[in-house]
Amino acid sequence: MSETVRLTPDEIRQLCLQVLDHCGYGQDHAAAIAQMLTTCQMDDCQSHGLFRLFMCAQTMQAGQIDGHARPVLTASDNAVVRVDAQGGMSLLAARMGLPVLIEKAQTHGIAALAINRCFHFSALWPEVESLAAEGLAAMAMVPSHAWVAPAGGTRGSLGTNPLAFSWPRKSGDPFTFDFATSAFARGEIELYQRAGKPLPEGVAIDRDGNPTTDPQAAMDGAMLTFGGYKGSALSIMIELMAGPLIDDLTSLESMEFASAAGGAPYHGQIILAFDPQALGGGSSDAGDARAERLFSDILAQGARLPSQRRFAARARNIERGYAEVSAQLHADLLALLG
Amino acid sequence: MSETVRLTPDEIRQLCLQVLDHCGYGQDHAAAIAQMLTTCQMDDCQSHGLFRLFMCAQTMQAGQIDGHARPVLTASDNAVVRVDAQGGMSLLAARMGLPVLIEKAQTHGIAALAINRCFHFSALWPEVESLAAEGLAAMAMVPSHAWVAPAGGTRGSLGTNPLAFSWPRKSGDPFTFDFATSAFARGEIELYQRAGKPLPEGVAIDRDGNPTTDPQAAMDGAMLTFGGYKGSALSIMIELMAGPLIDDLTSLESMEFASAAGGAPYHGQIILAFDPQALGGGSSDAGDARAERLFSDILAQGARLPSQRRFAARARNIERGYAEVSAQLHADLLALLG
Repeated sequence: MSETVRLTPDEIRQLCLQVLDHCGYGQDHAAAIAQMLTTCQMDDCQSHGLFRLFMCAQTMQAGQIDGHARPVLTASDNAVVRVDAQGGMSLLAARMGLPVLIEKAQTHGIAALAINRCFHFSALWPEVESLAAEGLAAMAMVPSHAWVAPAGGTRGSLGTNPLAFSWPRKSGDPFTFDFATSAFARGEIELYQRAGKPLPEGVAIDRDGNPTTDPQAAMDGAMLTFGGYKGSALSIMIELMAGPLIDDLTSLESMEFASAAGGAPYHGQIILAFDPQALGGGSSDAGDARAERLFSDILAQGARLPSQRRFAARARNIERGYAEVSAQLHADLLALLG
Repeated sequence: MSETVRLTPDEIRQLCLQVLDHCGYGQDHAAAIAQMLTTCQMDDCQSHGLFRLFMCAQTMQAGQIDGHARPVLTASDNAVVRVDAQGGMSLLAARMGLPVLIEKAQTHGIAALAINRCFHFSALWPEVESLAAEGLAAMAMVPSHAWVAPAGGTRGSLGTNPLAFSWPRKSGDPFTFDFATSAFARGEIELYQRAGKPLPEGVAIDRDGNPTTDPQAAMDGAMLTFGGYKGSALSIMIELMAGPLIDDLTSLESMEFASAAGGAPYHGQIILAFDPQALGGGSSDAGDARAERLFSDILAQGARLPSQRRFAARARNIERGYAEVSAQLHADLLALLG
């Protein structure tokens, strides 16, 4: 028996729509979520593709999310667009806000999208890449739950707090990264736990604040940030930018609100867009050439650009017309419908 | 004999003005540089205080800088202000651009200051803290010279590329950090070299791209970024944001332009400002309370906030009316005037 099944983009999308409808997400939310999951799955981004349907289901079961929430966009004449997700999943609010963010970035040179009061489970790179596709540089940040200790601390205060960035390239895929500021993903710790393997040094502390390589002690304690006190400072910046700055929750507050049933965190999200035309004083051609020279210099020494593997997977999967999905995952998802 | 001398802020400023005038900097440039160095010295920030007068002198000796350059600000009705430093030191251009950046952030909610064609030697925290003093959150980035290898690379492509951030706090000092994305400061390597001590593991590679703890081999090779591939990605983002985005040089190009005589790098700088009123939908009070709760939670577990030591030094030095400066440094600076 094959361990994978081949799913076309349309089959992935249909599977998402079926599961999400079954869970209680309205049609608009299901469409926005399905688009995100299909994009990730077609890039072989397993952690944020179809697998995340389980979190969508759990979040609905936890009872706090509104599967039919209608996001409300506040019109403004400044460079800020705010969308209140009204307690629904973030993606429908993002879908509403992103076209306005693009317009505002083109008008003002720089603009911000603040999404408030949303549940959030998704990768950030599809959103920043959608802005890069419009010729904009973009940055996105979200808090999560307070599983991560600050440098020198003894317990969780910070979220896994990812930072994503994308830079438009005229030829080919954008320069994109999307990384958690925690040293380790929480899901990875669970995988080590199941495998009975010790964690690497330096990624977690136990509930007394002491370094640990025991997965269970780490789950009971806290993760550390990547990069010591610098990564910790960056993580605090992300808390502030995607929380208090936009009048929304920190990871501590999100955990208090939504920790009960293992669903998605509840908080805000900030996305910044930068127009290289305006910032470059009228033309971005010289800047493009400079960026390309930098990328060439990095590649010439055998280093990779972030996301290179993902772009290779995308090209292959689009070319052949399908992604390979774990047969077990596929069966488990079909079982959700049963 | 005492190893330090006590200098009042006014004495520090006067010493700066004398040295800068002697070196050939015009009055406006000297005033802007002296203000920056005095601010840093009063915070006991030794690496970016009076010590940097030597770099100002070397940069002038290298012959490329214009000590009398008159920055030109391009007026715009969007959220971007661009100041062309015209080949002078960055600080006079920053002094011209920051008030417009503040105004634009208050008008548009978010704004960017791009400084172009400047020589740059200074800490970024005084600039982001000056924005926090106006109630704005702020971020600043600059490239430098290509002394830092990307993750997986074998030679320098990236600058030490600092990221600075400041968050306004109604009571007390702002939350501020300003860190290099290199694992180690270049100046630190020189100190290890002079002391004949090996470097820590993981901060540098030799000219063949192999890990090294030998300071000379590191100087001939390259530094690494902090935080592995994540820090490397962040460093590339800073190159793009403070270089190609604003139509200015990367660290590679800066090194080609200005490597000759060990003076300051020549490139651009970007400063972003965020108005919590606009981004928070009208009021920043709830956001302030959330941020303060986060800071309290971090401090309650015995962790520090970044810049705490610097703020303590500032309070002490302001209280007693002077900073303690190395007598050797003081003598060496006076010798510059001889």
